[in-house]
Amino acid sequence: MKVAILGYGTVGSGVGEIIEKKASTDVKALELGYILERKENLHKHPLMCDDIDRILDDQDIDVVVETMGGIEPAHTYILQALSAGKHVVSANKAVIAQYEKEFHACAKAHGVKLLYEASCGGGIPWLHQLQSVKRIDSIDEIHGILNGTSNYILDHMSKEGTSFQEVLQNAQDLGYAEADPSADIDGDDIRNKLKISASVAFDCAPFQEIPTFGIRNIRKEDIAYAKAQHRNIKLIATAKRSGDYYGAVIEPTLYEEGLMEASVADNFNLACLHGTTIGDLRFFGQGAGKLPTAHAIVQDLLDLAQEVKLPEPSMHESLIYHPELLTSSYYIRSVLNDKEIQEILHGAIVHSEEAQGCRYTRTKPLEKAFLHKQMERILKKDPQAFMMALDQTGEEQA
Amino acid sequence: MKVAILGYGTVGSGVGEIIEKKASTDVKALELGYILERKENLHKHPLMCDDIDRILDDQDIDVVVETMGGIEPAHTYILQALSAGKHVVSANKAVIAQYEKEFHACAKAHGVKLLYEASCGGGIPWLHQLQSVKRIDSIDEIHGILNGTSNYILDHMSKEGTSFQEVLQNAQDLGYAEADPSADIDGDDIRNKLKISASVAFDCAPFQEIPTFGIRNIRKEDIAYAKAQHRNIKLIATAKRSGDYYGAVIEPTLYEEGLMEASVADNFNLACLHGTTIGDLRFFGQGAGKLPTAHAIVQDLLDLAQEVKLPEPSMHESLIYHPELLTSSYYIRSVLNDKEIQEILHGAIVHSEEAQGCRYTRTKPLEKAFLHKQMERILKKDPQAFMMALDQTGEEQA
Repeated sequence: MKVAILGYGTVGSGVGEIIEKKASTDVKALELGYILERKENLHKHPLMCDDIDRILDDQDIDVVVETMGGIEPAHTYILQALSAGKHVVSANKAVIAQYEKEFHACAKAHGVKLLYEASCGGGIPWLHQLQSVKRIDSIDEIHGILNGTSNYILDHMSKEGTSFQEVLQNAQDLGYAEADPSADIDGDDIRNKLKISASVAFDCAPFQEIPTFGIRNIRKEDIAYAKAQHRNIKLIATAKRSGDYYGAVIEPTLYEEGLMEASVADNFNLACLHGTTIGDLRFFGQGAGKLPTAHAIVQDLLDLAQEVKLPEPSMHESLIYHPELLTSSYYIRSVLNDKEIQEILHGAIVHSEEAQGCRYTRTKPLEKAFLHKQMERILKKDPQAFMMALDQTGEEQA
Repeated sequence: MKVAILGYGTVGSGVGEIIEKKASTDVKALELGYILERKENLHKHPLMCDDIDRILDDQDIDVVVETMGGIEPAHTYILQALSAGKHVVSANKAVIAQYEKEFHACAKAHGVKLLYEASCGGGIPWLHQLQSVKRIDSIDEIHGILNGTSNYILDHMSKEGTSFQEVLQNAQDLGYAEADPSADIDGDDIRNKLKISASVAFDCAPFQEIPTFGIRNIRKEDIAYAKAQHRNIKLIATAKRSGDYYGAVIEPTLYEEGLMEASVADNFNLACLHGTTIGDLRFFGQGAGKLPTAHAIVQDLLDLAQEVKLPEPSMHESLIYHPELLTSSYYIRSVLNDKEIQEILHGAIVHSEEAQGCRYTRTKPLEKAFLHKQMERILKKDPQAFMMALDQTGEEQA
């Protein structure tokens, strides 16, 4: 099977390396045809070319790997490749989360496949397993740590007692975080992954309503406050389905030490599902990185090369947003006084305390969507405020 | 696809329930033909019959599910079914570990498949993932918690501070442990699962040399001793490959709190692999239980029904046992004095201490196989002695 790679950055070049290394009989069935790159890079590999039309017009190319990232021109190239009768394998969560339905319609119309295992959870065979479990079960809940950069920051703040800025700088120096870290620390990246995961798990179009709170405002005091309760803070994506309804959220969440979520170190990911007969099933692995992510792409390529029968993507379910499905108690760190917060939260404060030189307010169990909305009001008065949800186990013990 | 189930205990009846519930389009393609059961049970289900030949002679039966357990008659029935041109799906680790090679040769000769995802790790798609990762990577190490009963016992001893006997009794009352718990607590069950897992991971016949030490001798003092070091004791199966060599072991192992292995609660399983490009990949789920195990069997049935292209089992590698591959430091609890232990361990004691009213001896890093052998000598003099390996992380910090 002849493969063209669009974009030869970290992940794209990992795919090239695995294909060219031919380390297994299966991989030997793959052949590299083109690498789309900018003119100034063309000397770096004999297969590089800067003309997308040459790739799309070449009848020998069976599949296009899109590892450019970003929305355009990835969106256009994917549609053009599918329309030219080529399968597409993509690692690009932003473009998939936005155009998943359009892409699948186009693929179906041209009798080809669009696969994107690498877009969620890096090397973890997460989307594959969601599809597989669905052959037998209904999935009612998914959650996980799906952004390696934010987990690296939280884990190292916790282990080293250092500030957000120090750890972020360190992560940037090591190449774990980008120069503009917004997508990772504000939750946009993990939200895209949740959209894709939920659309696969629940057979629906990507959710539009996902209240999101990232870790931009986290301080070492918050980590210390959690630690004093023997808890770790993790940036968690959750989606829940009940009948025709869904709820979904991205937020910092407190897990007791000893729980699996709390044990996820460095930039690893953990992806969890709950199904009718299988119960809890969880997958842990490298959520990013050159070779693990490239591995997931090559798995998709092998499924295409070996004509593995893949489930038809189905987005027929029209789920209705139902924020009541997701509730928890929260801790809020803010300089506002109890009266102001009590007013904003409609009287939902259980208690407040000074700790680590900050003021932390504990709420009653609340609809997550309500809390996120009211948090916007708190942030207007206190732009440095931070919030953490209690996971269900914490809830029970509180 | 028409299915016969041999043995209608917990797991077999779970398979029947999933097939008869027809909860998904995929499952609707499966049809129950026969259930082999003893004469006295025949009234319990209209499809029950006590005549294996009637099942084997029925040309309409495409696949036989073997959920009888034990070696005979399972071994004979599996060979007969394969020879009659029927696929076989088995959950029986004991018979697969013993006859894996013979079964595959027979299946190949008759153009059918033998699948046994449910034999290792219950509902976890572990063998499937090993096969999948191998399409690209070499796997050099696998390890895990693969026996739910022993993990239940260790976890509840740790959380409740109770004795082995109390927790075992409780597990028996709840149906988590059998009346004769030997296979679970002496490591035979997990050893069979390691044999099967390693044969899939490393393309070899099941290992013959697997030093094994179970948890029969564990006391609440050992758990307390581990806890004082912020560690949990887990019964771990490990296999390692390097070139043409292998090492494998089953033993109680100390993991620091905060590590994922330490977080595995109740009767859950955790299965871990390390591959060339994927790095660390881990799977967590129900290692036993009616519906999760039945789910894994139905996954195999669906792969057969949907003619999913499955990797050909290959046991062509002749790996040589090389005990030097696996080493660690140990704690040994024994009533023998330092001089006796020092003599038995060839001077490998680092220090000894009284704790929890017992005497614990810490060793230097040793070949695991050597320690297991010398432990037999210690047990002859002190039949209640216990040992715990330090996991690699513990080793580094010691």
